[in-house]
Amino acid sequence: MTSFEFFRLQTRQEFLALYHRFAPVAPEVVDLAHAWGRALAEAVTAPEATPEFFRATMDGYAVRARDTFGAGVGAPAYLKITGEVPMGVAPAREVGPEEAMRAPTGAGMPPGADAVVMVEYTAEHPDGTLEVRRPVAPGENVLRPGEDVALGETLFPPGIRLRPQDIGLLAALGVTRLKVRRRPRVAIFSSGDEIVPMAEKPGPAQVRDSNAYVAAAQVEEAGGVPLMWGIIPDDFAALKAGLSAALAEADLILISGGSSVGRRDLTLTAIQDLPGCEILAHGVAMRPGKPTILAAVGEMVPKPLLGLPGHPASAAVVMEVLGRPLLWRLAGVAHPVNWGATLAARLSRNLAGAGGREDFVRVRLRYEGETLWADPVLGPSGLLSPMVKSDGLVMIPLGVEGLNRGESVTVQLFR
Amino acid sequence: MTSFEFFRLQTRQEFLALYHRFAPVAPEVVDLAHAWGRALAEAVTAPEATPEFFRATMDGYAVRARDTFGAGVGAPAYLKITGEVPMGVAPAREVGPEEAMRAPTGAGMPPGADAVVMVEYTAEHPDGTLEVRRPVAPGENVLRPGEDVALGETLFPPGIRLRPQDIGLLAALGVTRLKVRRRPRVAIFSSGDEIVPMAEKPGPAQVRDSNAYVAAAQVEEAGGVPLMWGIIPDDFAALKAGLSAALAEADLILISGGSSVGRRDLTLTAIQDLPGCEILAHGVAMRPGKPTILAAVGEMVPKPLLGLPGHPASAAVVMEVLGRPLLWRLAGVAHPVNWGATLAARLSRNLAGAGGREDFVRVRLRYEGETLWADPVLGPSGLLSPMVKSDGLVMIPLGVEGLNRGESVTVQLFR
Repeated sequence: MTSFEFFRLQTRQEFLALYHRFAPVAPEVVDLAHAWGRALAEAVTAPEATPEFFRATMDGYAVRARDTFGAGVGAPAYLKITGEVPMGVAPAREVGPEEAMRAPTGAGMPPGADAVVMVEYTAEHPDGTLEVRRPVAPGENVLRPGEDVALGETLFPPGIRLRPQDIGLLAALGVTRLKVRRRPRVAIFSSGDEIVPMAEKPGPAQVRDSNAYVAAAQVEEAGGVPLMWGIIPDDFAALKAGLSAALAEADLILISGGSSVGRRDLTLTAIQDLPGCEILAHGVAMRPGKPTILAAVGEMVPKPLLGLPGHPASAAVVMEVLGRPLLWRLAGVAHPVNWGATLAARLSRNLAGAGGREDFVRVRLRYEGETLWADPVLGPSGLLSPMVKSDGLVMIPLGVEGLNRGESVTVQLFR
Repeated sequence: MTSFEFFRLQTRQEFLALYHRFAPVAPEVVDLAHAWGRALAEAVTAPEATPEFFRATMDGYAVRARDTFGAGVGAPAYLKITGEVPMGVAPAREVGPEEAMRAPTGAGMPPGADAVVMVEYTAEHPDGTLEVRRPVAPGENVLRPGEDVALGETLFPPGIRLRPQDIGLLAALGVTRLKVRRRPRVAIFSSGDEIVPMAEKPGPAQVRDSNAYVAAAQVEEAGGVPLMWGIIPDDFAALKAGLSAALAEADLILISGGSSVGRRDLTLTAIQDLPGCEILAHGVAMRPGKPTILAAVGEMVPKPLLGLPGHPASAAVVMEVLGRPLLWRLAGVAHPVNWGATLAARLSRNLAGAGGREDFVRVRLRYEGETLWADPVLGPSGLLSPMVKSDGLVMIPLGVEGLNRGESVTVQLFR
């Protein structure tokens, strides 16, 4: 029918490999308080060590370890208590031989002392003598300077997506400003003469836009900024004008096209007419998702355009499987999924594969005693409710005829 | 030393069961575009059906199924093409006996037609005749009204945390405004004379605040709004004044106390002096996390106060294990973790349990061929870097002496 038919289906891996054509978005400097979930644009090294002083890690007494050698319940060591270590100020007084100072957890170690005897193994006598019933080794219950982080140590390579504990370590080291990638801006379009906005009542043979709202939430979940560009009718000039305008302000364009062949061709023609357009893929060997399009568009820096299938369930699955990795690539995340959220379960019925395509099957999870069952949720891709009833996806690989009831499968969980 | 010593350790399950003392925060009505991640405050039923009309799910021809009975490659059926079904408007023209109309995916079915023959099984002849090489059954390749969702069907019970596909279904049904729980507001305090703000250079024996920043990111990740209340010194009046002020504006108070016994008592005394205070738990049978405090405070509606351990790694683990379920309770999430993000892995070394406490051990994940190994990341709770080097937690249950190298374990992943 058109030249587009000559595109061969690409495997999912081939499709994902094309993302290296696109550079991460520009970096920006943000306060640490706003860095959670962002990807580092450059490596961070420790500007100082932590801790910076010898620090007690238990409630007890700062002592010279050698004074406790051989101490036991039958033969305690006796030390003279000379006071308490203050919190948050440098301990001025030295701990001399056969002396001890009370030291709460977190206190700086006074000069002379090299270990902390835990309070559990001591008794204070009324005359100010400390009875020690267990020996301590030098350094016991004490953090030494740089034990957590050494000065100049590489804390994070670029491309790490910062988690809460990572933010904590940076706070402890006083790294208050960071160079991270900004959030990718994602223009979202729906196309089709029969699509009406969510707030309108559809006429006969019309349906409300839903793909744009699913995509927007998925973009937000993955750390992007969704820009709602609305609905474009099946019209070449309108498609081209809308996409061109979005190209100026977005880092990524998503368009969920109609699902008919004529419309896909119309959309593809409009995409091809964009400045600097190169169609990288038209068709992926996965079900659902076969008609997915990937293009590089824009004259200066090529930006990605992802053409999603029109069927709601297909569009949602393609965003899970292909959309999130693309968004993370743009966001500068070096390892798109560190450890994906998956669960092992048993398949509750036989499933036939998609013959020549990877098959992504929706499943609902259910415990029966100790066994976690994955129940396939079947239904045409035009329906939304099967996606809503599902907890995740099971993939039947290329070249596998099918999976058997009772087989162990890995469920990729929805977020 | 004080009366607080008489609190017995509670198990994690007992601790979590106490959360039923706290009501979810008030509902608010939001636009669907802002409902992602929120918990529904009431059930949602379908205000209409979807689809509302018979709809083609494939590119092909709308026909009367009976006209194709018996059709095959050797004996095709021949129908008269009378035009194309328009998109987005009610099909006016009827499909009569032995007639067919071109119908793209998504088109409304014209009166008279009850099935769609896929284009692959047809040929158009120059004289306007359609050759059909396969029979279709009535209803084939057609969605019927209400097949996705029926009018009045319960879509979601209250307490569901809305995912992207859930937003999509609500959009398709025109549910533009929703009653959800507002985001819980969480006041975050750090306490201790030796703690200085992140932006300051610590003096000798001082450390920067890090717990507040970890907790803030964890709160944000779980859907709450962190309110940074700063650092309180070890002073009864200051503690009481700070906590009282926060009580007026927050739904939950988090305070990470010093880790010494004296300080914990000071913090607990200040908490007990708050209006309407009831200490519900002081001590949990888990490691790290033993000194965790749970109180109900406030005169009208009891609000929760969670006292976190002062050690950075302990505070972070307690927030993961106990803090997130509490936040989700307040956010109105009925099933706090539908399916947690876990991975099965093999333990790479022997681990001894904590004897009488659940032991949460940090692990780093590593593939060796096909085997996923969980490497324990050991180190005192006062260190931050082991948390940063870890991917998740492995729990050694109460009453289990330890785990053996090679044993299969479930890793609860950090987010």
